[in-house]
Amino acid sequence: MWLRTSCDISFNILEPTPFVLMLRPRSGAQQWVAREEYKLTPSVPATEFTDIYGNLCQRLIALPPYFQVTTAAEVRTADYVDQSPGAPFVEIQYLPDSALNYLLPSRYSESDRFCDMATDIVAGYTLGYDQVAAISAWVHNNIQYRPGDSVEPVSAAEVNERGWGVCRDLSHLCIALCRSLSIPARMVVGYLHQLQPMDLHAWFEAYIGGRWYTFDATVNILQGGYVAIGYGRDAADVAVYNQFGPAVFPTTQAVSVEQIVGDA
Amino acid sequence: MWLRTSCDISFNILEPTPFVLMLRPRSGAQQWVAREEYKLTPSVPATEFTDIYGNLCQRLIALPPYFQVTTAAEVRTADYVDQSPGAPFVEIQYLPDSALNYLLPSRYSESDRFCDMATDIVAGYTLGYDQVAAISAWVHNNIQYRPGDSVEPVSAAEVNERGWGVCRDLSHLCIALCRSLSIPARMVVGYLHQLQPMDLHAWFEAYIGGRWYTFDATVNILQGGYVAIGYGRDAADVAVYNQFGPAVFPTTQAVSVEQIVGDA
Amino acid sequence: MWLRTSCDISFNILEPTPFVLMLRPRSGAQQWVAREEYKLTPSVPATEFTDIYGNLCQRLIALPPYFQVTTAAEVRTADYVDQSPGAPFVEIQYLPDSALNYLLPSRYSESDRFCDMATDIVAGYTLGYDQVAAISAWVHNNIQYRPGDSVEPVSAAEVNERGWGVCRDLSHLCIALCRSLSIPARMVVGYLHQLQPMDLHAWFEAYIGGRWYTFDATVNILQGGYVAIGYGRDAADVAVYNQFGPAVFPTTQAVSVEQIVGDA
Amino acid sequence: MWLRTSCDISFNILEPTPFVLMLRPRSGAQQWVAREEYKLTPSVPATEFTDIYGNLCQRLIALPPYFQVTTAAEVRTADYVDQSPGAPFVEIQYLPDSALNYLLPSRYSESDRFCDMATDIVAGYTLGYDQVAAISAWVHNNIQYRPGDSVEPVSAAEVNERGWGVCRDLSHLCIALCRSLSIPARMVVGYLHQLQPMDLHAWFEAYIGGRWYTFDATVNILQGGYVAIGYGRDAADVAVYNQFGPAVFPTTQAVSVEQIVGDA
Repeated sequence: MWLRTSCDISFNILEPTPFVLMLRPRSGAQQWVAREEYKLTPSVPATEFTDIYGNLCQRLIALPPYFQVTTAAEVRTADYVDQSPGAPFVEIQYLPDSALNYLLPSRYSESDRFCDMATDIVAGYTLGYDQVAAISAWVHNNIQYRPGDSVEPVSAAEVNERGWGVCRDLSHLCIALCRSLSIPARMVVGYLHQLQPMDLHAWFEAYIGGRWYTFDATVNILQGGYVAIGYGRDAADVAVYNQFGPAVFPTTQAVSVEQIVGDA
Repeated sequence: MWLRTSCDISFNILEPTPFVLMLRPRSGAQQWVAREEYKLTPSVPATEFTDIYGNLCQRLIALPPYFQVTTAAEVRTADYVDQSPGAPFVEIQYLPDSALNYLLPSRYSESDRFCDMATDIVAGYTLGYDQVAAISAWVHNNIQYRPGDSVEPVSAAEVNERGWGVCRDLSHLCIALCRSLSIPARMVVGYLHQLQPMDLHAWFEAYIGGRWYTFDATVNILQGGYVAIGYGRDAADVAVYNQFGPAVFPTTQAVSVEQIVGDA
Repeated sequence: MWLRTSCDISFNILEPTPFVLMLRPRSGAQQWVAREEYKLTPSVPATEFTDIYGNLCQRLIALPPYFQVTTAAEVRTADYVDQSPGAPFVEIQYLPDSALNYLLPSRYSESDRFCDMATDIVAGYTLGYDQVAAISAWVHNNIQYRPGDSVEPVSAAEVNERGWGVCRDLSHLCIALCRSLSIPARMVVGYLHQLQPMDLHAWFEAYIGGRWYTFDATVNILQGGYVAIGYGRDAADVAVYNQFGPAVFPTTQAVSVEQIVGDA
Repeated sequence: MWLRTSCDISFNILEPTPFVLMLRPRSGAQQWVAREEYKLTPSVPATEFTDIYGNLCQRLIALPPYFQVTTAAEVRTADYVDQSPGAPFVEIQYLPDSALNYLLPSRYSESDRFCDMATDIVAGYTLGYDQVAAISAWVHNNIQYRPGDSVEPVSAAEVNERGWGVCRDLSHLCIALCRSLSIPARMVVGYLHQLQPMDLHAWFEAYIGGRWYTFDATVNILQGGYVAIGYGRDAADVAVYNQFGPAVFPTTQAVSVEQIVGDA
């Protein structure tokens, strides 16, 4: 399907404030960006770089009294994400070098603390895809999904104790559980068609059977319509904006995803 | 200034034909891409990767009987490129690692063969920016610029012997001359506002005084309106399309660059 | 000074066990490796790759019943690490792209939780080097250094609460405090001449005044003799070995650092 | 087999002279470096970086009157390189992104000019490994190998016209021929056991059947004992030393390769 995505964020700015933004979806194996727009209001000098995960990031200094980022894209993405029950666990020695990084514990996914819990959850499941699906289902069924109820990120251990979280939090727990079984897992932020309520979304991918597969613990049945903006070890790596100096908060954040009828 | 660029290329395709395209300008230190469009007709699966020079490239297979790539962008770029007479030569030991690669000879810039010629051209000029400006002026004055008169790329040595060339050829000669003086130089392909006749363009950059500066041997006086698509050692690295298998030739190639009145 | 370093680790292996090792010091701006040895006993196939931080890592599968890694190197390193009181804080907009990553919170350095504490510690100090020196001194004076008393890594928040730790733990706290002030900070593992008791060591670097500086909260007065093996965001990135599958523990780990009299 | 390699190069230096060296073999899929030595006489500050091809390079300034580089390594390498007659040509769309670069023409391998010649040579051979073997055999039989008779590098076209060359020249011609058939090919410099007369050596690799295979047009029958130091598009990328400023020439260059009896 073809989707038109947009994200519009405004800030009141009291003093010159450095920002690093990550709001530019890239074409890749899973999606194709046919049109893209990235507007800064007022227009300020900005430079772009590629981070260690391959994400396109923009650096700029927002000036008082007001700063707005308006991004939009037209993206082709799968109607239904690939699922592959039975896809095998990849032995460590056969993982690509680039996947090893996603086995390590990270700020919000303390995988070093979840080995027993993961072993319990996946007991009886075939090694690989089925284990990850079991983890995602377990989190879906046992951690209450409360979209919008987010103050600041909490870690997998904290989410697990608290019993509820936003999409980001559920992903952190899934990622920690996967990694504790030596399955590479990474965080994705982006858009999801028909998300209710509409907002930016977070989900995760696991490396199984020789490729990355999409999972999402916030949904009962995995469908399609995902548009990725950034990949990383966890939310610390894929903030859509990092701002430095005295905190500024968005005065508005509007996200939309619409299906485009016909070809883009 | 804000420019709206577009490039539209069509091919007759006789059999499934792999392509690698490089037609996506990136935001960087010199330009900001506010809007971008990349349309494949008919729509085929495509993936994107970043090459060793940091360019965004797209891979796909064009199918018979017809394939068209339509790209467009809205880009902010300088009205006048930075010039810095007197900017000093950077001693090899102070060059960033990433610039060393641009000292080496390459397919179309056999810098190993231009040392004497370069020494003659820059005699009397201050080391650095002024040498590169002298090289660009020398090529401008001694190699006839014949836009559009291009069959296939020829090398700096061949251009120098022949005495004329397209933008790409003049750049190759300048690059070879710069490198022979241990000044890093690289090829840029992209768009130029008010180029006559309008087409894709090629120019070069040299690393002097701690940064890359823009030069263009096809013009008498360096102005602005440059939009870069790709960077590389020479034309071999920055083909806007590489096609594999039996040759196909574009049936149409239309390029436009228009200034946008007001803000983008 | 020239140092001869060695690290010898042995394991009892019950079943084929994948390892990723990071025990190969690289020549860089701070040190020069003149001689190096890396012996696997028994000899097994091994491949090497460069991780996202630039570290050289080795992958292999250890086989029962026994596996040993013996590494040694002759390295030139500074007698006294560079110190630069007064070196200024680098505004975010002037940081190199590659340093931004070291501003983010990580597994063991939850910098998002240390802003108030860091502000208190550095009150009255000049922005930059002096702040980092103040942080290192504060940790040295307030967190008890207990070499060898390490079970598993704990995070900066846990170390701060507990009040004691190994070199790694003290570094994690310093790193978290620096990052909370928007000063890039990274973990280093390696060797330190005359460390008592001799073992592998961990310290940290902070990006100030346009370069990385060495700090070490375990010492009262910063001297020299540091040999770096790996760099990363925190201990999760720079384990000298990561082992997968059922845990195996080293049966011996012997580290030595000797000064070489005369030239290497 | 285990080999002990060494390379010792001396220069008379008249003025401070920047060098970029590439003399450090890396452990990889094809070889394991168990011991390594890299000595600079006199000892000067040196830094190391990784180039765009993954090679470890060292930067330094040699001072008058004399500079010497002494390197040695103990390396495990295959007794017989893998050969795989019948291994299939990899369609462009299935090549890894990292191999695409090795399809492009380069300074000394003008693959854009060898399509007809390559087609003739491989007529009747199965696509893939057998074509490359046919190219290597053709060059072996038709271009006279004259070890040691090297002044400066010449290109594939020049070698082909001239009819003789050193190892580097024969490799350039093979690489150009392979690329003209859309087979990725790259230059390797390093050591070869029992090379007569002993010297540094150059050979090439081609990407076939999902991996890189070793070929060497200087030998009649491909054996083993290869130790790679550097990989690149051609000799321009893999000079064991690049020197800048007024030319200096080695006063001595001594290379040795000895088999180590027993384990290293």
